[in-house]
Amino acid sequence: MQVANLFEGYLLRSAMPVLYPLIGAMNVQSQPNRIIIFDTTLRDGEQCPGATLNVDEKLTIARQLARLGVDVIEAGFAFASPGDFEAVQKIAQTVGTPEGPVICSLARAIPNDIKAAAEALKPAAKGRIHTFISTSDIHLEYQLKKTRAEVLSIAEEMVAYAKSFVNDVEFSPMDAARSDPEYLYQVLERAIAAGATTINIPDTVGYMTPSEFGEMIRGIRDNVPNVDQAIISVHGHNDLGLAVACFLEAVKNGARQLECTINGIGERAGNASLEELVMALHVRRQYFNSFLGRPVESEAPLTQINTQEIYKTSRMVSTLTGMLVQPNKAIVGANAFAHESGIHQDGMLKNRQTYEIMDAQTIGLTNTQQLVLGKHSGRNAFRTRLKELGYELSEQDLNKAFLRFKELADKKKEVGDRDIEAIVNDEVQQVPDLFRLELVQVSCGNRSCPTATVSLINPDGEELTDAATGTGPVDAVYKAINRVVNVPNQLIEYSVQSVTAGIDAIGEVTIRLKYGDRIFSGHAANTDIIVASAQAYVNALNRLYASLQPAEPVAASVN
Amino acid sequence: MQVANLFEGYLLRSAMPVLYPLIGAMNVQSQPNRIIIFDTTLRDGEQCPGATLNVDEKLTIARQLARLGVDVIEAGFAFASPGDFEAVQKIAQTVGTPEGPVICSLARAIPNDIKAAAEALKPAAKGRIHTFISTSDIHLEYQLKKTRAEVLSIAEEMVAYAKSFVNDVEFSPMDAARSDPEYLYQVLERAIAAGATTINIPDTVGYMTPSEFGEMIRGIRDNVPNVDQAIISVHGHNDLGLAVACFLEAVKNGARQLECTINGIGERAGNASLEELVMALHVRRQYFNSFLGRPVESEAPLTQINTQEIYKTSRMVSTLTGMLVQPNKAIVGANAFAHESGIHQDGMLKNRQTYEIMDAQTIGLTNTQQLVLGKHSGRNAFRTRLKELGYELSEQDLNKAFLRFKELADKKKEVGDRDIEAIVNDEVQQVPDLFRLELVQVSCGNRSCPTATVSLINPDGEELTDAATGTGPVDAVYKAINRVVNVPNQLIEYSVQSVTAGIDAIGEVTIRLKYGDRIFSGHAANTDIIVASAQAYVNALNRLYASLQPAEPVAASVN
Repeated sequence: MQVANLFEGYLLRSAMPVLYPLIGAMNVQSQPNRIIIFDTTLRDGEQCPGATLNVDEKLTIARQLARLGVDVIEAGFAFASPGDFEAVQKIAQTVGTPEGPVICSLARAIPNDIKAAAEALKPAAKGRIHTFISTSDIHLEYQLKKTRAEVLSIAEEMVAYAKSFVNDVEFSPMDAARSDPEYLYQVLERAIAAGATTINIPDTVGYMTPSEFGEMIRGIRDNVPNVDQAIISVHGHNDLGLAVACFLEAVKNGARQLECTINGIGERAGNASLEELVMALHVRRQYFNSFLGRPVESEAPLTQINTQEIYKTSRMVSTLTGMLVQPNKAIVGANAFAHESGIHQDGMLKNRQTYEIMDAQTIGLTNTQQLVLGKHSGRNAFRTRLKELGYELSEQDLNKAFLRFKELADKKKEVGDRDIEAIVNDEVQQVPDLFRLELVQVSCGNRSCPTATVSLINPDGEELTDAATGTGPVDAVYKAINRVVNVPNQLIEYSVQSVTAGIDAIGEVTIRLKYGDRIFSGHAANTDIIVASAQAYVNALNRLYASLQPAEPVAASVN
Repeated sequence: MQVANLFEGYLLRSAMPVLYPLIGAMNVQSQPNRIIIFDTTLRDGEQCPGATLNVDEKLTIARQLARLGVDVIEAGFAFASPGDFEAVQKIAQTVGTPEGPVICSLARAIPNDIKAAAEALKPAAKGRIHTFISTSDIHLEYQLKKTRAEVLSIAEEMVAYAKSFVNDVEFSPMDAARSDPEYLYQVLERAIAAGATTINIPDTVGYMTPSEFGEMIRGIRDNVPNVDQAIISVHGHNDLGLAVACFLEAVKNGARQLECTINGIGERAGNASLEELVMALHVRRQYFNSFLGRPVESEAPLTQINTQEIYKTSRMVSTLTGMLVQPNKAIVGANAFAHESGIHQDGMLKNRQTYEIMDAQTIGLTNTQQLVLGKHSGRNAFRTRLKELGYELSEQDLNKAFLRFKELADKKKEVGDRDIEAIVNDEVQQVPDLFRLELVQVSCGNRSCPTATVSLINPDGEELTDAATGTGPVDAVYKAINRVVNVPNQLIEYSVQSVTAGIDAIGEVTIRLKYGDRIFSGHAANTDIIVASAQAYVNALNRLYASLQPAEPVAASVN
């Protein structure tokens, strides 16, 4: 394969000593023969309609991302809102340790954005500012209303400005895929000269095919004179279902950082999915070795991801964002490792390799870990299992979660990992406790009129009780709650998933409400889905109610 | 691009007159400059755990696939079971009209399989037998326990045998991607010589990257001497998230038929998704034109799919199989056309093209079609809307559905398309009516013990009533039903989706039960999710119960 030879020159070039300041610079600059995983679940991923996460949920996910072994966590867009700022700052503080991942904040190529990012990132041992500006003519004309020359100097100035705060600066020419290549090369050259250590090439609208994406990256590698002083990164959207394939082709052509999200969540059809990229690079590492200048037979992993943590991370992100994973989703879908047809099953029994290219255990999916605790399990066993599952609770939250665990163990013989996750995710959620659900009581059936009674404690501490009938028990409960809370809203989604198998399973309810243009989600878990439905609704209403109090957020985000 | 030149020779070659018998042969053989869409939702798609469809559900989907404009419907695996046989036969009868799609049945390279396929396909104006045998050494050794020479002559003989029934014969060398290329070329040459008019190249384990897949197809095109006498087809699995990209690369290298499924459902992580393939070929047609020997600027569609039917088909398959579509699924996910971030929304308002490469209306997704009928709508309006939505019900089913519609319209102000679909899917389901749910009545709440009463009419016409308590209302209902029905089973999945927005929405419950090694699904829709849960459980139990009566199916399927 000729492509491999082309790479030798590239590797030689990028192996030339470049002087990077030591503090704050990524330690991966000197390792261009492996792939840097840049996770943007908390930034681009959170841009899904309704997937909004609060600070504690973000922190929980960030901790798990660190365990998963991602190189960079894009923690948010610090300037976008006080909540975003706080999330970036807390993640920088807690997860941004010297041994931990690089913590990154997005910032438009605007001084105040960059300053906010720098400020939020201060507590991180390794902080990165990721600044961007559009370079396609269509965006320049209609959105920025600026000339090419103006954008060129803004990019240069703003990278330099970011560099005055941190050494690790990433620059993205937004809508690169639709930009004039010659102009794109110019912008990138100036950004690198101004100090960008990573240049990230986004296909903002998810338009490209893999070969075109590969060619674009090769064009950049071949035409940007100082490209050897930066890591080439890629960012893409899955509108045509091609994001993962595009990135793999980019790797073959010189990209060394992949921007991706857990479960592929993100704006519209989402981003490239981390688990698919990592597992493709894992299963096919011998194919990719030559493109990274390694011996073809090398078994050394191409990323630093601990694949055993993939399934757990996928579950956590799905539960906390309320974004379901379809059963036929690659790698992490419920059916991804299930063999249905008789012929396949027969083959599997004779030799696993006949129909399987990877083992479910590689992603941390095992049957044995399902059953663990029961009603006689103590606090220590519970805490230990929580830690193994990736959750670290405060003493207070642990106490609350343990009480719920005991309640559940009284109802259910066996409490599995999924049950424990559901309990903990409820606790971690920490919705503002403005209205508190005291009582919910329902009667319904195919020959009776569904009727619900609820009691809520309002923010002033008063207990309010009301009842309503509805088209079903959930409708009746929600109408009764509305009589008490009285904030007009529209229910746009309601779903229930059973967390575990068995008819005594915990049901996890996710709902999304619309208020004006904004969407608020709530989730709750309980063995009684009517109780879970009531609690999820109260949670979402509390978020809505809380948002009506303080100032509106400043800006929303990107790429 | 040099590749285009390589194609001219190919097109010349394949334009050479080849003598095909007229009757039963595909009329697409003479049109290699467009892409043939081969839909296998009803065969490989149905191989998802729990996605099992009954004959009427398959027929409903087949009708919609014809409306969508697919060229070939793989209707099933006739020999696998009496149910499969009946489904293929009914689809051949009803949908396999002279103007309709080719109807295909899968068959192992075994005389009885092929005979059953031929028999089932008889009523179709255009019938195709798709026969297959493994060609990889790992499958030969562990599964078939046959030598290469044996497999070579079996392939030849069985294609010839199929040809004795129909002119349109497709041959698949299973696990082609892991087969020795030289041996693969030999098998394909012999199959074509024996009469195969389509040769289908499967990546059975979903292992390949797009470039490798493209190279494999080019290798076949360049090394199988009589390849110009057959259409090259591709089949793949999405284990690494690369199936769609692999197929598009195959198109660039000579493949002209794509085997795909709606929503990408299928064995494990599923098949290549029809909607992603079709829309990629649609949005990027000018990129693909040159590979198909067309003028680059041509706006002519590359497939015969009516894209306006995509969304409707996706919804139908999702509801009838109970396989959820995740919100960030490309093309058909709920968020695929949603723009969340402020910057994106701002750009969209200024010029749609800044962030959108396709219009939601292209796939038949419009806001205006949401609200249609109300309590004063008559039977004709209901029937007309049903037809527009792709459902043709018998007079009897229509009456039942209309009654349900009136009931619903009494409870809900506005009855939307999604509500209507939910009602009709319930009717189309036609579960064997062994146990009938007469009464369900529940009381529950966070301070009471969930209690359910149910009455069922058993197959002998007796009414049986019992009650039970549970960990929640659904658990209580299921325990009460189990007391009456008494067939041991394990609930492995339970989910509820709201069909429409609004708190008076219909909830659609899907459940899967396990009995021994087999999985049975049930779904039901109602504004009362407890009633829907009870009905879905009774539906699944009826399927389970029915399966205990007749003979077991003969074989399961493939690829």
